[in-house]
Amino acid sequence: MVGYGFMGAAHSQGWRVAPRFFDLPATPTMDILVGRNAEAVSAAADKWGWAETATDWREVIARDDVDVIDIVTPGDSHAEIAIAALEAGKHVLCEKPLANSVEEARLMADAAAHAAERGVYAMVGFTYRRVPAATFARDLVAAGRLGEIYQVRASYLQDWLIDPEAPLAWRLQKHLAGSGALGDIGAHAVDLAQYVTGSSLASVSGTIDTIIRERPLAENAHGLSATASTERGEVTVDDIALFTGRFESGVLGSFEATRFSTGRKNALRLEVSGSKGALSFDLENLNSLEFYDATLPAGTQGFSTIQVTEPEHPYIAAWWPAGHTLGYEHGFAHQAKDFVEAVAAGSQPTPSFADGLQVQQVLAAVESSSDSGSAWTNVTDQK
Amino acid sequence: MVGYGFMGAAHSQGWRVAPRFFDLPATPTMDILVGRNAEAVSAAADKWGWAETATDWREVIARDDVDVIDIVTPGDSHAEIAIAALEAGKHVLCEKPLANSVEEARLMADAAAHAAERGVYAMVGFTYRRVPAATFARDLVAAGRLGEIYQVRASYLQDWLIDPEAPLAWRLQKHLAGSGALGDIGAHAVDLAQYVTGSSLASVSGTIDTIIRERPLAENAHGLSATASTERGEVTVDDIALFTGRFESGVLGSFEATRFSTGRKNALRLEVSGSKGALSFDLENLNSLEFYDATLPAGTQGFSTIQVTEPEHPYIAAWWPAGHTLGYEHGFAHQAKDFVEAVAAGSQPTPSFADGLQVQQVLAAVESSSDSGSAWTNVTDQK
Amino acid sequence: MVGYGFMGAAHSQGWRVAPRFFDLPATPTMDILVGRNAEAVSAAADKWGWAETATDWREVIARDDVDVIDIVTPGDSHAEIAIAALEAGKHVLCEKPLANSVEEARLMADAAAHAAERGVYAMVGFTYRRVPAATFARDLVAAGRLGEIYQVRASYLQDWLIDPEAPLAWRLQKHLAGSGALGDIGAHAVDLAQYVTGSSLASVSGTIDTIIRERPLAENAHGLSATASTERGEVTVDDIALFTGRFESGVLGSFEATRFSTGRKNALRLEVSGSKGALSFDLENLNSLEFYDATLPAGTQGFSTIQVTEPEHPYIAAWWPAGHTLGYEHGFAHQAKDFVEAVAAGSQPTPSFADGLQVQQVLAAVESSSDSGSAWTNVTDQK
Amino acid sequence: MVGYGFMGAAHSQGWRVAPRFFDLPATPTMDILVGRNAEAVSAAADKWGWAETATDWREVIARDDVDVIDIVTPGDSHAEIAIAALEAGKHVLCEKPLANSVEEARLMADAAAHAAERGVYAMVGFTYRRVPAATFARDLVAAGRLGEIYQVRASYLQDWLIDPEAPLAWRLQKHLAGSGALGDIGAHAVDLAQYVTGSSLASVSGTIDTIIRERPLAENAHGLSATASTERGEVTVDDIALFTGRFESGVLGSFEATRFSTGRKNALRLEVSGSKGALSFDLENLNSLEFYDATLPAGTQGFSTIQVTEPEHPYIAAWWPAGHTLGYEHGFAHQAKDFVEAVAAGSQPTPSFADGLQVQQVLAAVESSSDSGSAWTNVTDQK
Repeated sequence: MVGYGFMGAAHSQGWRVAPRFFDLPATPTMDILVGRNAEAVSAAADKWGWAETATDWREVIARDDVDVIDIVTPGDSHAEIAIAALEAGKHVLCEKPLANSVEEARLMADAAAHAAERGVYAMVGFTYRRVPAATFARDLVAAGRLGEIYQVRASYLQDWLIDPEAPLAWRLQKHLAGSGALGDIGAHAVDLAQYVTGSSLASVSGTIDTIIRERPLAENAHGLSATASTERGEVTVDDIALFTGRFESGVLGSFEATRFSTGRKNALRLEVSGSKGALSFDLENLNSLEFYDATLPAGTQGFSTIQVTEPEHPYIAAWWPAGHTLGYEHGFAHQAKDFVEAVAAGSQPTPSFADGLQVQQVLAAVESSSDSGSAWTNVTDQK
Repeated sequence: MVGYGFMGAAHSQGWRVAPRFFDLPATPTMDILVGRNAEAVSAAADKWGWAETATDWREVIARDDVDVIDIVTPGDSHAEIAIAALEAGKHVLCEKPLANSVEEARLMADAAAHAAERGVYAMVGFTYRRVPAATFARDLVAAGRLGEIYQVRASYLQDWLIDPEAPLAWRLQKHLAGSGALGDIGAHAVDLAQYVTGSSLASVSGTIDTIIRERPLAENAHGLSATASTERGEVTVDDIALFTGRFESGVLGSFEATRFSTGRKNALRLEVSGSKGALSFDLENLNSLEFYDATLPAGTQGFSTIQVTEPEHPYIAAWWPAGHTLGYEHGFAHQAKDFVEAVAAGSQPTPSFADGLQVQQVLAAVESSSDSGSAWTNVTDQK
Repeated sequence: MVGYGFMGAAHSQGWRVAPRFFDLPATPTMDILVGRNAEAVSAAADKWGWAETATDWREVIARDDVDVIDIVTPGDSHAEIAIAALEAGKHVLCEKPLANSVEEARLMADAAAHAAERGVYAMVGFTYRRVPAATFARDLVAAGRLGEIYQVRASYLQDWLIDPEAPLAWRLQKHLAGSGALGDIGAHAVDLAQYVTGSSLASVSGTIDTIIRERPLAENAHGLSATASTERGEVTVDDIALFTGRFESGVLGSFEATRFSTGRKNALRLEVSGSKGALSFDLENLNSLEFYDATLPAGTQGFSTIQVTEPEHPYIAAWWPAGHTLGYEHGFAHQAKDFVEAVAAGSQPTPSFADGLQVQQVLAAVESSSDSGSAWTNVTDQK
Repeated sequence: MVGYGFMGAAHSQGWRVAPRFFDLPATPTMDILVGRNAEAVSAAADKWGWAETATDWREVIARDDVDVIDIVTPGDSHAEIAIAALEAGKHVLCEKPLANSVEEARLMADAAAHAAERGVYAMVGFTYRRVPAATFARDLVAAGRLGEIYQVRASYLQDWLIDPEAPLAWRLQKHLAGSGALGDIGAHAVDLAQYVTGSSLASVSGTIDTIIRERPLAENAHGLSATASTERGEVTVDDIALFTGRFESGVLGSFEATRFSTGRKNALRLEVSGSKGALSFDLENLNSLEFYDATLPAGTQGFSTIQVTEPEHPYIAAWWPAGHTLGYEHGFAHQAKDFVEAVAAGSQPTPSFADGLQVQQVLAAVESSSDSGSAWTNVTDQK
């Protein structure tokens, strides 16, 4: 695994736990943790239980005893590592967003397509698909329980930037983070909406905005926290992104990504309405799904809170008895399981790098639309 | 109408509004408001729109142009007025509790039974039965949608006494109020549970308790409010009543009435569980009913929040278009409607005085059980 | 009162009930109900309790014993009646939307401005402002409890058109209804968002769409219901309107109005986020308001469900004891009260016709933006 | 670790994960899994990652390289293993209920008290205390945020027995399971209520009942599932337990444990009300806590949904960034952490065996009360 930030902890937990609950066709081993800072990576490896460490990912890719490269570095290094790994015949799991630009993402998708022809597979890490309630939502739509889809509402609401004196972290600087709320959390909303409905966004009209344009410079940054300096700098990414999307199916969807929704901590929400029903999901209550069945007799229709903790639900049978809840990190175990199963079966895991590219194009189209006065912008035109 | 307190306002609103929305077989007119204080009753009559006032209910009962007596006085005068009115051939609507003792309630029930033989009817005002969601809950049980009933949970939670320095109002003195939380709000929980399940309580085991045993004496009391004196007096009614009941059907139910449930303003709650489903009602959200259908396929079962605001639901078609909510007072309009319809049809309105007597017996059985160390106590043994 | 549809019933209830609960400086009397069909208007007058009827509103306006004209006719007749009434020196309460076009609305606003100089006042009926929880939301914002406003989310979700075979009612035909979801329910979302935040929308970028473009022709239409014919016709209004708005304050808001949100019956929702707090309102639970206080110590912050049923809350003290809920129609009583009080005091009631015109301009700007590929469009440019 | 059922998986996950997130003074290693069936225990050890297996716990206790014995066997073997392990100088973690009888529990508590004098510690596994929201609830009470406690409501609601044709599993037979809903889930409600309030139950009055008294015999039972035979047998444990308890503090609490609450999957609920506030917890939504602060200004009081996912909350800082949820199993990691920390510090971990004994006495008192017509029964009298 290359990288050892927050996502490193999450992926480690996924690899560690998946084989303890699922019967996998191959047992993943946590071999080598890679990072540039030898001391820090060694400490992380000890903490998370990786057997070895390395400071140069190129050497790791060259090793014969390595089958899988898991990339959890910042987005600007994804393309280089992933393409090299695929060319070296390693299966790749790469954290989202696939890259910091459509151009890089396209190179990665191309590399993945070529590798797949040789039986080497790549997957991008939109783990929220693998929250059981989200997977179950997709199953309901796919089974026709919502009928013809009428409209979609997707949002990802956080509030960790509402204090105007919060320091100018790297995530608020475009040259480092690529994008703000749009790419960091909006990407999840886009992937989830497309995944659950089974339809891709064709075009968008949007607005992105920066609410607090200047913040104190950060000092002593480590991880997500930092202290504020007396000097101030410009926030160069978006704080909020609002857009309307037209799916290939013709359906309209509204999208919102914001870090200024006071009181919402991690609210990835999706509502899908159709001729036969509707569903509503909120990551803050990830063990349940709201489902409205419009085919029930009038008078007894209502949004049902389904506890998605029963053996009939995706992934659940492997865990605890009915009614026992899962948490945020379980999606990473499900991701590890699905990745291992697909690769062992010689099949393409999803979401593929092509899927990751398409999400990147949606984000680029939103930025482009915002730059041109919210004009409708085609997703596939993004280069 | 005899009496002009809070219930006077509610009953007035019921009489005023019912004929404007429902097509009634007879149109009630708001003729005479009766109260001992001529000045106060006159002000109330002006405010609420009563045509005349009187200070002696006996004179009103004697009038030929009066068909219905509505009694909203404190419980200690119910028996005398109601029995006299029934003997005078007037139909009677009497606010709950039917009386302050089982003995009085029995006299009233007997008088009502005799009157009914002559086509003169009496009804007691448990209006919460007529909240559409509560009526609909009964309909679901009656239609077998819950299957065999397994258990019942009923509570009425308020918090208006949590301040230990709140003054010793008349409702906290046994010689005036008869009972505390048990009679005032527990009675509603008992009636609702029996009504929805269609089964009566046969025996109970309970405990009543006074949490704050001494309070400042009240000064300048008017209505529900008063100011505190420096002298203190004893609280002689219960603050909380907890009991377990066995229904005639054999089912167990848990009951709770309290004015010390901090943060709960008016939470009359009922949950009924059965072999085929369950329901959950809360008066604080009176426009909805939670319904769980255990006959749906596993995986899609969940508590549904039914908005009980559709034309298919009880009473709703007469009001507003689908989705528009009702409030507390609408139960009084439904009560007026049901009373007028039953009387006009020459049939017994429900709940009858006999039903009111039975609730009184349940309350008496709880007090008796509490006095004897929570021993199980038969309801019908209460005299 | 001119008109006797659904809004006629609601306004009648407002006039009937307001003086029974509020101490008004003048007591409104329900004198004359006006409608073109003598028989139908007479039946409505009997039902709702109006003393007289008339078939020509011009005659009523000419009467000396009439002080107030309440207009609840379809939007296409508002301008003519309101302007004539104001010129005749009658105070006017006019149901929303103010008119079917910006042009007419402007004429009305001008007439109202002139009349106000003579002490004759006009008001437009956005009653949802007067739901206590909505009024209280405004109070919290005005008191600075949310700090600097960061963003707004407003939607009005209904589902009564999800059946593609529902007939082509008059509300689905542009020449009759003027607009679809946008004008009918989106107008409420716009007014509520502007009212609560105290800031007006300056520009918008939006998309309106018709999901079901053809429906069976309606036969035997009466009121909101009709039966379906075998012939089909075109739906010429929007089914869904999605737009982003920029307030004068610079804040961004997202707006959605739809009749295709399966399972949502009457969900007028508003969320406002600011530096010190946030609030969330939903008309389906109109007795409560969610409030997040970001100034509380970390760890105990959370969205509070405030039961807006306490004497400290707007309008509540006049109704029932704490904890007893109100319904949809109470907003009309509050409207009647506020109108009477303002007029009696010789002051302008709100929202004024100018406010109604501004909402009309917002709606026109959304349609214009949608026509021009969602380009940002100034509200005040709408003529 | 002795035992390898459902609790074996949960404890394994706790030991595996705790050192990866918490900095522990000693790192637990998963050495030996013990079970009578060599083949089955070997499979479980492979699955869960235990290094060795053994079939005789006595041999394991005798080993010098073993410091801790974790007991997850059925309750009837707890006493023998735990006492032997403590005498052998091993620290013991024992799953709840501590034993199947008060007598055995007392022997265990005595053994633990003697061992503690020698620096050898024992702990019983009420893990729900270690759900962060539950721990935080205790902290709020301990900090006086609820003021004087007025009353308690605790329940544990499940529904896995509502089908009368569900087979007669071992948990429904008294000679195997000891008790039904009372001991299995009621014990958790008792522990949680006592833990959060910091007060022990002094006496109880209760009723236990068996709703379905006869069921098909089970065939081919493995784990929690089995198939039904055509023969029927008697259910000898309780399906439902309802009791009222008086705490040492004088406060009354209502308790309910049931497997017949249709639609409730795993609803361990606790409400505590006090003079300054209230709280409400539900294990089905274990990442949040409802808190009502009665010291806030009137008008803005309400139950707040606190997302207990912030670094200020117990245990959370070690896991994920703010807003990311935990699941059922995290309590076991917290238990492992707290146990290791206490033992390493030479201090008594909680809950101790004495605490476990006291819960056992409460359960015995409930059964005794039920047998004597719900008479009030002292907890400490239970032998």
